[in-house]
Amino acid sequence: MRMVDLIEKKKRGGALSQEELEYFVQGYIKDQIPDYQAAAFSMAIWFQGMTSEETAQFTQAMADSGDQIDLSSFGETTVDKHSSGGVGDKTTLIAAPIAAAAGCVVAKMSGRGLGFTGGTVDKLESIPGFSSALRTDAFYGQAKTIGLVLAGQTGEMVPCDKKLYALRDVTGTVDSLPLIAASIMSKKLAAGAKNLVLDVKCGSGAFMETPQEAEELAKQMVSIATACRRRVTALITDMSTPLGTMVGNRLEVIEAMEVLCGRGEERLTSLSLALASEMIHLGLGLPQDEARNTAEKMLTSGAAMEKLLQAVAAQGGETKYLENTSLFSPAACQTEILAKEDGYMVGPDALMVGRASVLLGAGRNMKMDKIDPAAGIYLTARRGDYVRRGDVVMRLYAEDQERIAAAKTLLSRSVQIDEKMPSVPPLIFKRICGNPVR
Amino acid sequence: MRMVDLIEKKKRGGALSQEELEYFVQGYIKDQIPDYQAAAFSMAIWFQGMTSEETAQFTQAMADSGDQIDLSSFGETTVDKHSSGGVGDKTTLIAAPIAAAAGCVVAKMSGRGLGFTGGTVDKLESIPGFSSALRTDAFYGQAKTIGLVLAGQTGEMVPCDKKLYALRDVTGTVDSLPLIAASIMSKKLAAGAKNLVLDVKCGSGAFMETPQEAEELAKQMVSIATACRRRVTALITDMSTPLGTMVGNRLEVIEAMEVLCGRGEERLTSLSLALASEMIHLGLGLPQDEARNTAEKMLTSGAAMEKLLQAVAAQGGETKYLENTSLFSPAACQTEILAKEDGYMVGPDALMVGRASVLLGAGRNMKMDKIDPAAGIYLTARRGDYVRRGDVVMRLYAEDQERIAAAKTLLSRSVQIDEKMPSVPPLIFKRICGNPVR
Repeated sequence: MRMVDLIEKKKRGGALSQEELEYFVQGYIKDQIPDYQAAAFSMAIWFQGMTSEETAQFTQAMADSGDQIDLSSFGETTVDKHSSGGVGDKTTLIAAPIAAAAGCVVAKMSGRGLGFTGGTVDKLESIPGFSSALRTDAFYGQAKTIGLVLAGQTGEMVPCDKKLYALRDVTGTVDSLPLIAASIMSKKLAAGAKNLVLDVKCGSGAFMETPQEAEELAKQMVSIATACRRRVTALITDMSTPLGTMVGNRLEVIEAMEVLCGRGEERLTSLSLALASEMIHLGLGLPQDEARNTAEKMLTSGAAMEKLLQAVAAQGGETKYLENTSLFSPAACQTEILAKEDGYMVGPDALMVGRASVLLGAGRNMKMDKIDPAAGIYLTARRGDYVRRGDVVMRLYAEDQERIAAAKTLLSRSVQIDEKMPSVPPLIFKRICGNPVR
Repeated sequence: MRMVDLIEKKKRGGALSQEELEYFVQGYIKDQIPDYQAAAFSMAIWFQGMTSEETAQFTQAMADSGDQIDLSSFGETTVDKHSSGGVGDKTTLIAAPIAAAAGCVVAKMSGRGLGFTGGTVDKLESIPGFSSALRTDAFYGQAKTIGLVLAGQTGEMVPCDKKLYALRDVTGTVDSLPLIAASIMSKKLAAGAKNLVLDVKCGSGAFMETPQEAEELAKQMVSIATACRRRVTALITDMSTPLGTMVGNRLEVIEAMEVLCGRGEERLTSLSLALASEMIHLGLGLPQDEARNTAEKMLTSGAAMEKLLQAVAAQGGETKYLENTSLFSPAACQTEILAKEDGYMVGPDALMVGRASVLLGAGRNMKMDKIDPAAGIYLTARRGDYVRRGDVVMRLYAEDQERIAAAKTLLSRSVQIDEKMPSVPPLIFKRICGNPVR
């Protein structure tokens, strides 16, 4: 087999066989296939696409290219959740404990944030003492005893995706749906859960701008998961405005606790419950309405909160900060943004708030950057709220005045107030299910 | 400027500016742009093509990437000739002396053969003493005194094409018309002649299979030449059967001498005169019919033969071998292929004869291979000839019996004899002219 023949085949619109896709993945991670052939191949895929069979086989070959988590001893109840990334999205901190409290095994590996997209690991590490780096035996032990693990990714999972993504980034081949779907799903397959709930976001603060684009990506991911014998449900959800009222790592932990205490903002609570219901539906095989009732019960009874405290404690976190979030030391600097007139809040726009959060120090521009756990934004007025001139609409937190000033300039310009009530898009656009593979 | 943005632009069907194309060429030869970006870029060009303006600017940028021959002191009379390659094509050895005898300056750099496509330099080097490696002052001196130089290519011309072609070869991006046209024409622009005659071949023994494909390539090359202020004419010619009766380096020199002595095979003589006429038409600005008369006069008067002998002598070749070609020592081994029945010769097929010539040692499989100047094939029966069973249709020459046997097996199978006279395609399908830029 020669890589140049595989490139030719794809260039002319052919579908590669499983053997050919494995040849590429193995050859590429072993440096037997050079970057320039992988780049030409990726560009040919950008133009010609991949069949759903090809995409699934490519994804599996990528998942098989490195270490994998074996959760098979937990049977059918293992559930993972994936979000395509957004601003203020702390649903994992809420939905995962709900599902675990209901009896699912949620042994999750989460990523760190990049750009304005937050990462669960960054959020949890704002809790003093919390560690996301678990030894293998601790990971499996905690999954068994608590049913909830919130760990970071290890270095050796899906090395092919790591290498290929870096190449795609500099060769104009990032925005290929099959390559995006394969990249995400290879990591999910390697993470070992039998069931998978995908939250595919659309809007200004998401990777996909429109519900249609998000649905196309979701369909490809659902198709891969099904072909690889995972049960899967995807929700297409709105990311035109931040989720909840808090953006920034420590702030989002605080807001997650508020939801778990029953005091959460409505849309955030609603989406967290929807995701948790899907996790329970798949993981425990309950009908949708029963799964929903169970999720609500786990939230209102405090069982979900208790589950999160157990997991955080097991991973070294000082739970007193969660039980009393006023113990967190305040950010060094803060400021307010005031409404300049009476009317309805049109935004806040997710992209603008996301960019401002990076300026404040809550997100990274580059992988190496440090983040400030205390930095962030409290959205005191939400989309559709009626405000009066002089009302506080946002509070900004950072470690110095320079960051505060930069973010304030950006956000002040983006606050829009209108005489008319803005139209609000639905929270959940669509639900896409895989075929049952139980 | 960032290369990834140029790749994105081309991927989406945009046309690059002259500045962007120069950025790529300069960055690539300086190793500032890595192969993987050049590979993705080439694949995007494969899919999206290039406008004629882009192709011309890209070609000029490539030509400017290395050393160039400056023939400007010779005014408007410098003429170059390019063949897209074929089997038995020795027209340069005939047309160039004719044009030079008429008063054109033909200071040419020719290539070596690869695969079954012969190279003028290889052919000439079968003359004892002949050298194609000329110092710069000798090259210009001979151009001035004799008007005919048949040199080899130097290492530092169009380095970008050399590097890019090697990359395209392993990334499935060879067969892109604008990249092929730019590759050929960049070398012609760097070679410095004001006028250019292109012989674009089609058929089994050519790079382009059909006259339509050859015409498409010819049009792109003519468009580039015109945009870069060269006068240019392209002929689309037949390469379904070898040109003339001899294939192999020394054999082709012998056949060229036969044409220059007025004893040449008809199609070879006819194409050589057509090409020489175009060279004279462009180089001396004569009307077509006058140019044709001049070419014929140069051939029949012996002036063209005299010009070739002068040039060969100036480059160290022992001209006695040309004046009396029986002085060449015969090949070590030879054999004959006989007609198996009475009828008309359908072939010989150019591709089969070409492949057999490589088996005999007349061509290279790889750049490093040595060739045997004496090896080759004498086609004693041509397409359309009536032969009787037992007649010799081909004679094969090589240095050992093993090569002879391999070539004989291939060729015996390919000799086809039919009851009906085969249809013979025209020698010249089409003539394509550039706009006058005098």
